[in-house]
Amino acid sequence: MDPYGLRRVVAPVGVLPQRADVLDPALPLGEDEVAIEVEALNVDAASFRQLEGAVGRDPARIAAEVERIVRARGKLHNPVTGSGGMLIGRVAEVGPRHPAAAVLHPGDRVATLVSLTLTPLALRRVSAVRPEIDRVECAGRAILFATGPWARLPEDIPERVALAALDVCGAPALVARQAEPGQRVLVIGAGKSGVLVCAMAKERLAGRGEVVVADCSAAALARVAELGVCDRTLALDATDAVGALAGAQQGGGSLFDLVVNCASVPGTEMAAILCARDGGTVVFFSMATSFTAAALGAEGVGKDVRLVIGGGYVPGHADLTLDLLRRHPKVRASFEERYAR
Amino acid sequence: MDPYGLRRVVAPVGVLPQRADVLDPALPLGEDEVAIEVEALNVDAASFRQLEGAVGRDPARIAAEVERIVRARGKLHNPVTGSGGMLIGRVAEVGPRHPAAAVLHPGDRVATLVSLTLTPLALRRVSAVRPEIDRVECAGRAILFATGPWARLPEDIPERVALAALDVCGAPALVARQAEPGQRVLVIGAGKSGVLVCAMAKERLAGRGEVVVADCSAAALARVAELGVCDRTLALDATDAVGALAGAQQGGGSLFDLVVNCASVPGTEMAAILCARDGGTVVFFSMATSFTAAALGAEGVGKDVRLVIGGGYVPGHADLTLDLLRRHPKVRASFEERYAR
Repeated sequence: MDPYGLRRVVAPVGVLPQRADVLDPALPLGEDEVAIEVEALNVDAASFRQLEGAVGRDPARIAAEVERIVRARGKLHNPVTGSGGMLIGRVAEVGPRHPAAAVLHPGDRVATLVSLTLTPLALRRVSAVRPEIDRVECAGRAILFATGPWARLPEDIPERVALAALDVCGAPALVARQAEPGQRVLVIGAGKSGVLVCAMAKERLAGRGEVVVADCSAAALARVAELGVCDRTLALDATDAVGALAGAQQGGGSLFDLVVNCASVPGTEMAAILCARDGGTVVFFSMATSFTAAALGAEGVGKDVRLVIGGGYVPGHADLTLDLLRRHPKVRASFEERYAR
Repeated sequence: MDPYGLRRVVAPVGVLPQRADVLDPALPLGEDEVAIEVEALNVDAASFRQLEGAVGRDPARIAAEVERIVRARGKLHNPVTGSGGMLIGRVAEVGPRHPAAAVLHPGDRVATLVSLTLTPLALRRVSAVRPEIDRVECAGRAILFATGPWARLPEDIPERVALAALDVCGAPALVARQAEPGQRVLVIGAGKSGVLVCAMAKERLAGRGEVVVADCSAAALARVAELGVCDRTLALDATDAVGALAGAQQGGGSLFDLVVNCASVPGTEMAAILCARDGGTVVFFSMATSFTAAALGAEGVGKDVRLVIGGGYVPGHADLTLDLLRRHPKVRASFEERYAR
């Protein structure tokens, strides 16, 4: 048993696969591993842009560079950006002691929800590069460790819509644990994860309390309002903590029990903290969050708030998020409009 | 009422005092402010080293540089390191609407638990610079906002011992909320905050469960063991996640319900996450914590753990920590030996 894939680490010896320079994708399948016949790599946007910058926008050259990296490292771990992406494919083989051995079968179509930076991968060929969606279509074999989250691709939701939702599925899943009926919830950021978080929070409040979504884009707020997943919108710039607090308290409103930060820009920690009531909770999902800004910020204003790191994994998060899309046809339609093309 | 001190921000207009370039310490006292007659500035170590590097180790020149910064900015906010420190002094005046108006009186000796980076300060003179303890003795006037945490300096504990404990008082206070009887608790880092966290966790477990302290220094572990605040010590290098996990599971031990990361070095996020059981909690107090390393790390290994940012403020944290020292004479003695000289 090798739940973290340590035996596949070639160099440096003894680190976790994510920190490794080189993995060995060719070892025989472990009894707690799953082999996936890869169809496509959804490359992290930052990585894709770097590849384009390095070798140019010619698909053939990008394909060659992807093949070169995977050959050298045994994984698509961009050595410059440090980022990866995710993959989709069909299950080829299931080790008898993998936790999902009873439910995963050869031929099942799945997406891995674990970064390509730690996924052993061997490519036979790249068949197409699609820069407009950061995708590399290919044939190859990848390994999923026992601890690696994955999701079955649904048959009733277009693949690209499902991938867009799965990409942020940890956020609504964690909010489902945090939100409770009667709470006032503020969601900062009206993008993809913000919309799903709103929808989940609104369900959890069960008609008691309030879900408010804040963003600096009036257009984004108008779109969310149309989806019926929030009670109110608030136009504010979350990088302006003082202005955000004034906006949140506008009309004598009290502060929020739960603030969920889904902003995509840096510098929004203090706005989130100031908008939470004493005794409340702030959950940070933005990868632009600064640990010290959050920790020192709350101390500096003497605010007693629980500060939670939104770590993308919650058991069942993929199904929970796809079901959320199914229950909210307007949200699903907006995802289809935006991502299914 | 101006709980965040916004009216004292001179430039740039509209930001919080911590982000301001210049504050005005000379405004008349606000009705929810406290004025403090300053005796000493405990300068952040990084800031003090920078000052020494910039002007040399001559106390007179360091004094002049401190005076220059405070004159220019209205606060001791080192423009290079971005850090501050804390101050001690006596209450000079208490605004009638400050939250502590009923309990704080002129002449009371206090320490501010809020950074000097956001504390309005005017110096009349620097009387001594003590590089060996990063301290600047001075006469001046500082302002504490309504939201600024402070602590009364105890009469029964040497000042430098009290300051050393108050410096990290948020850690044991937050752990007091998280730890419960029956839990297995791992404290990573056997330094000052690690020791106080151990003492608090051991009290909270009430004889059921286990407090284990881990560090790479055998000497530090031996010191903690002598204090009677842990059940077991574990020699491990927390920057080596795989080795740390092996150490934690050594002898067939199960993983921990609560992991408290008090390490002072970067790169220890994964060790903390791997050592927590599924469903457990990791609290990060180290300012060297990387938000993304923690968030992505837990996702990459499919671990369902609550990841908590240890924000230094919990109501009552100062008294709680000083009382902890009083109840643990050996811990107090070790602090006296180390800090009271």
